[in-house]
Amino acid sequence: MDNRAIGVFDSGLGGLTAMRKLVEAMPNEDIIYLGDNGRVPYGGRSRETVIRYAREDTDFLLRHNIKAVVVACGTVSTVALDTVSSECPVPVFGVVEPTAWKAARVSRSGRIGIIGTKRSVASGAYDRAILRFRPEAQLFSKACPLFVPLVEEGRVRRGDTVIETVVREYLAELRDARIDTLLLGCTHYPLLSEVISDYMGGDVRLISAGEETAEYLIKKLRETDALASPDKRGSTNFYVTDNAEGFERLASFFMGSDISGRVKITSLEQEKQP
Amino acid sequence: MDNRAIGVFDSGLGGLTAMRKLVEAMPNEDIIYLGDNGRVPYGGRSRETVIRYAREDTDFLLRHNIKAVVVACGTVSTVALDTVSSECPVPVFGVVEPTAWKAARVSRSGRIGIIGTKRSVASGAYDRAILRFRPEAQLFSKACPLFVPLVEEGRVRRGDTVIETVVREYLAELRDARIDTLLLGCTHYPLLSEVISDYMGGDVRLISAGEETAEYLIKKLRETDALASPDKRGSTNFYVTDNAEGFERLASFFMGSDISGRVKITSLEQEKQP
Repeated sequence: MDNRAIGVFDSGLGGLTAMRKLVEAMPNEDIIYLGDNGRVPYGGRSRETVIRYAREDTDFLLRHNIKAVVVACGTVSTVALDTVSSECPVPVFGVVEPTAWKAARVSRSGRIGIIGTKRSVASGAYDRAILRFRPEAQLFSKACPLFVPLVEEGRVRRGDTVIETVVREYLAELRDARIDTLLLGCTHYPLLSEVISDYMGGDVRLISAGEETAEYLIKKLRETDALASPDKRGSTNFYVTDNAEGFERLASFFMGSDISGRVKITSLEQEKQP
Repeated sequence: MDNRAIGVFDSGLGGLTAMRKLVEAMPNEDIIYLGDNGRVPYGGRSRETVIRYAREDTDFLLRHNIKAVVVACGTVSTVALDTVSSECPVPVFGVVEPTAWKAARVSRSGRIGIIGTKRSVASGAYDRAILRFRPEAQLFSKACPLFVPLVEEGRVRRGDTVIETVVREYLAELRDARIDTLLLGCTHYPLLSEVISDYMGGDVRLISAGEETAEYLIKKLRETDALASPDKRGSTNFYVTDNAEGFERLASFFMGSDISGRVKITSLEQEKQP
């Protein structure tokens, strides 16, 4: 039993799809979310910058008595996870491994699609991880840079010409390749599941990075007897590095519940001062 | 005569539409561009954060022996220009006043549209400035949040369903309002001029924030005898705060000429150390 909190960070909102899964599955865990929206998006930053940001995010969470860190940011998971893990005194969970493992396991044909931001796709991190679990898999990847801004504008619904056109355009190659599993390698993408499923067809299984990572963490906590006491009522705390109001509006959309008035602003830099 | 340089800054790429105009019109001026792409976009940041960033950007330019600062960033121009101007030892030019003045002057009917990012439109800064120059003007404004990501993905051409759908959706009210002048209150938008003009009709005059600001600066330098020596050959220098390669690719698209290999990375924070 371990009543310390679980820390989750992302460059912004996307990690809330992991947070939501954790909250739903584990109502007695304390969970702290940090959205570094003051420096979002990480995707276009250099590797050195991403590593520096990831260290600062982790340090913030470590000051809150946590038992594990979930790196719910695809960019950090693909370019800085080794660095963060090697420096961190508690276990660190990135989104790549659990998601790749699940995709490798559920695909019947071994024909697997991977979508994500430009940087995640270019890194090849998901490809390498899937091939480690399933060396004969045939992989088809595609960067979908407009998905994040479209999700953040709420353009996620059936019948929206813009999102439907962009989905068709980005995913046509993957549909032609007759994949049976599609890895959503960015934590914003689960909000597009309906539109993506409509286009890809109902038998293509969608694997969501945020949700799989949350499930994997739960499994690991159970295996190591590190779950919180079952009679405890869990708390959730949300921190951002800028513009709490803007975050709250969209966060409620990602979390599927209203979190207005509950988001606190923090300065990662100031917190470091003694 | 004043051979010191002109400093231009923006949160990222957009200010290059002003830079381009300056370079074309004044080949003998030295011009320094700072794109703070390490912290882009400013649009979603709080007012305090935008002011801090603007101060750091201005300080960087002031270390390069400049005679004027062009704030080619709509967000800074609308929320931090007074602060920056009052603290800066050389004249500071924002994008709002020159653009509003031009729109107020060229409109025949006084029915003027204003488009920009959410923050710029919500600030009402363009509205107030136009009404100062033309109190009886009728203004119609609309935030166009997807224009920036679409431009940055190169989705600017006729026949592109996505940009055409988004343009139609955002601008329908303005077209119905029979405006005769449309103020492009974001320095990314000139790249959409063709698609916007197709939809709005050829008699709607488009006024571009970046270009008008450049023209206004030229006029002011001329009036104060502060132009560079006419026999001097001007230089251009580009600085960014992160990921120079990513910037160069898009910057060449904005500048209309190849600037590969010419962009230097700088750290605004490190530069401040003695």
